[in-house]
Amino acid sequence: MRRALELAATPGVPLGPNPRVGCVLLAPDGSEIAEGFHRGAGTPHAEAAALAAAGESARGATAVVTLEPCNHTGRTGPCAQALIEAGVARVVFAQPDPNPVAAGGAETLRAAGVAVELGLLEREARRLNRAWTFALEHGRPFVTWKFATSLDGRSAAADGSSRWISNETARRDTHRLRAECDAILVGTGTVLRDDPELTVRDAVDAPLARELQPLRVVMGDRDIPADARVLNDLAETVQLRTREPKAVLAELHARGRQHLFLEGGPTVAAAFAAAGLVDEVVAYVAPKLLGAGTSAVADLGIGSISEALDLKVTDITVLDDNVRITATPRKKA
Amino acid sequence: MRRALELAATPGVPLGPNPRVGCVLLAPDGSEIAEGFHRGAGTPHAEAAALAAAGESARGATAVVTLEPCNHTGRTGPCAQALIEAGVARVVFAQPDPNPVAAGGAETLRAAGVAVELGLLEREARRLNRAWTFALEHGRPFVTWKFATSLDGRSAAADGSSRWISNETARRDTHRLRAECDAILVGTGTVLRDDPELTVRDAVDAPLARELQPLRVVMGDRDIPADARVLNDLAETVQLRTREPKAVLAELHARGRQHLFLEGGPTVAAAFAAAGLVDEVVAYVAPKLLGAGTSAVADLGIGSISEALDLKVTDITVLDDNVRITATPRKKA
Ligand SMILES: NC(=O)c1ccc[n+]([C@@H]2O[C@H](COP(=O)([O-])OP(=O)(O)OC[C@H]3O[C@@H](n4cnc5c(N)ncnc54)[C@H](OP(=O)(O)O)[C@@H]3O)[C@@H](O)[C@H]2O)c1
Ligand SMILES: NC(=O)c1ccc[n+]([C@@H]2O[C@H](COP(=O)([O-])OP(=O)(O)OC[C@H]3O[C@@H](n4cnc5c(N)ncnc54)[C@H](OP(=O)(O)O)[C@@H]3O)[C@@H](O)[C@H]2O)c1
Repeated sequence: MRRALELAATPGVPLGPNPRVGCVLLAPDGSEIAEGFHRGAGTPHAEAAALAAAGESARGATAVVTLEPCNHTGRTGPCAQALIEAGVARVVFAQPDPNPVAAGGAETLRAAGVAVELGLLEREARRLNRAWTFALEHGRPFVTWKFATSLDGRSAAADGSSRWISNETARRDTHRLRAECDAILVGTGTVLRDDPELTVRDAVDAPLARELQPLRVVMGDRDIPADARVLNDLAETVQLRTREPKAVLAELHARGRQHLFLEGGPTVAAAFAAAGLVDEVVAYVAPKLLGAGTSAVADLGIGSISEALDLKVTDITVLDDNVRITATPRKKA
Repeated sequence: MRRALELAATPGVPLGPNPRVGCVLLAPDGSEIAEGFHRGAGTPHAEAAALAAAGESARGATAVVTLEPCNHTGRTGPCAQALIEAGVARVVFAQPDPNPVAAGGAETLRAAGVAVELGLLEREARRLNRAWTFALEHGRPFVTWKFATSLDGRSAAADGSSRWISNETARRDTHRLRAECDAILVGTGTVLRDDPELTVRDAVDAPLARELQPLRVVMGDRDIPADARVLNDLAETVQLRTREPKAVLAELHARGRQHLFLEGGPTVAAAFAAAGLVDEVVAYVAPKLLGAGTSAVADLGIGSISEALDLKVTDITVLDDNVRITATPRKKA
């Protein structure tokens, strides 16, 4: 299974809308027959790739897959059926398929007399497709809220200037995180004030190809200028004329988006946080003091320290002299 | 010299007002004859301790000392003279004495025909007595400003409640840092609002002995209640009825205090920072969001991001899910 997870995580495999999946075929003596992984929408599923590589030798084999074999006919045939037809004797998988349309593979396999085992390294497999799994289970995209702040919680100085609060390492790190999402959102306030481009750039500061860029989303009622950089050709853009985070997430879900990168500003971010619609917080803390200016986080309706939005820290990373703190909101009792 | 520095740093040696000093006496063949270190005001200097241990065998020896041997007669005689009288042939020291009253030891030794070398591991020796050295060189105490903040830069919630923003590990760490200082300062605002005790407590939460407690300093014009905890018997307290950081530091310097621990609140801390009178910043960042409430840092008169008070990070330490960031203000060009 570790090998199957490695295969699934092959670098360069485009993320979304499909899950990352890896598959290893083992002979009855435990030796490896073939491997396969999914390369993205429109290409063979991991099981199909491994079966194709194995040919006749798949008969009697054990298939180790990171995700429950699918049961539906998409652009490729159902994998459960393919495994049965290839004569595979046993299937071990990590994560049950959360997709109501594709689930049922385990049952189909069992009904055909194939031995089925599940749950091995399930947590690791879920983490591999965190946003995909979340979106299927919750019916909305996973929301990562990123903000950059001075040591005293400011995201801009008194005159509104904010470039740059973070150091270069932190800014490059942000592009890496953006690239893991399929939508980036800011409010009209940030567009009107900062005119950001909101594209993903690579290590040499060149924008990724348009089809690899996350969807740019602007939220709010005001018009934005036709020459705003967020409207350039480097990526797709949509303005959602609403102030309701729930409505935004419903719209993005309908468009097949699974992972929203919420980049602020403070007003829009606070609206998501206050609605309980933030699933992860990534804060870049810079060693600067401003003493005044825009707060990184706008009013959340919190009156007392006991009502604070408590976060569970999952990672603290030092980026030169900046600190990145990754955390998830704790559910209130 | 490494051994001499180790001796100087012997745990339990009371800090201040005297410097920590270690001394090793070596025979002409390089073997060690005797060691000594200073145990605090009123006890023999490191050189005197080593000479006493060596007796007659000090004749012709090399004395390795972390600090230039003193030249003045304090509670003990001048060490330069004692080394000469003991027949020491050579003296190696790390840090020149910054004390104008005590300096001149090297010259006295040379005039008496003793070979003198200086500068070996000087940086390490200076660090050992950082506040003592700073106070002598600058004519005022070294100022460490400590604050605790939520991830969004708040030091209290909207209703003023602030207990506890930091976790227990961070709070215990604060007591360790307090113990390294000889004065702790807050403004009248913090006393009136929080009624803190401002004592140093040990690992089992018992207050240290009164004579080991830093001086408690309250700054500001308003009267504080006679039953304020800061006025209890556990430590000495003084209220300085001024709003001028410079005047406070002059008064503390006159009282022989070398290291001020500035604990806020935001108004008083900002006054020190804006006056360029903060030498070190220690920020405890907690994974909480408040969205409103008192800012950890009050107005510093900074209008634009380019005027931000930039800090040079010297240490980042993770304390469970809190982060401690230690930094020094960068001098503006
Ligand atoms: N440090 C950082 O990480 C960071 C990130 C981004 C921005 N910033 C800074 O933040 C500042 C902009 O702050 P901002 O708060 O104005 O930006 P914003 O949150 O991007 O935009 C606020 C605007 O969004 C609209 N909006 C959408 N949903 C809303 C809701 N639920 N409630 C209220 N309004 C909603 C409103 O405009 P309509 O009237 O159009 O609806 C509102 O004025 C800039 O100075 C920028 O530099 C900092
Ligand atoms: N998170 C933390 O690390 C931390 C630490 C301490 C306090 N706090 C919080 O901070 C809040 C108190 O804030 P604060 O700013 O009022 O406290 P503060 O800075 O302790 O006290 C402010 C008062 O000090 C006097 N003062 C002295 N020098 C001054 C100067 N140069 N300029 C102006 N005033 C001067 C003034 O009162 P007079 O009229 O008497 O002169 C002023 O009102 C409390 O909620 C407390 O919980 C948080």
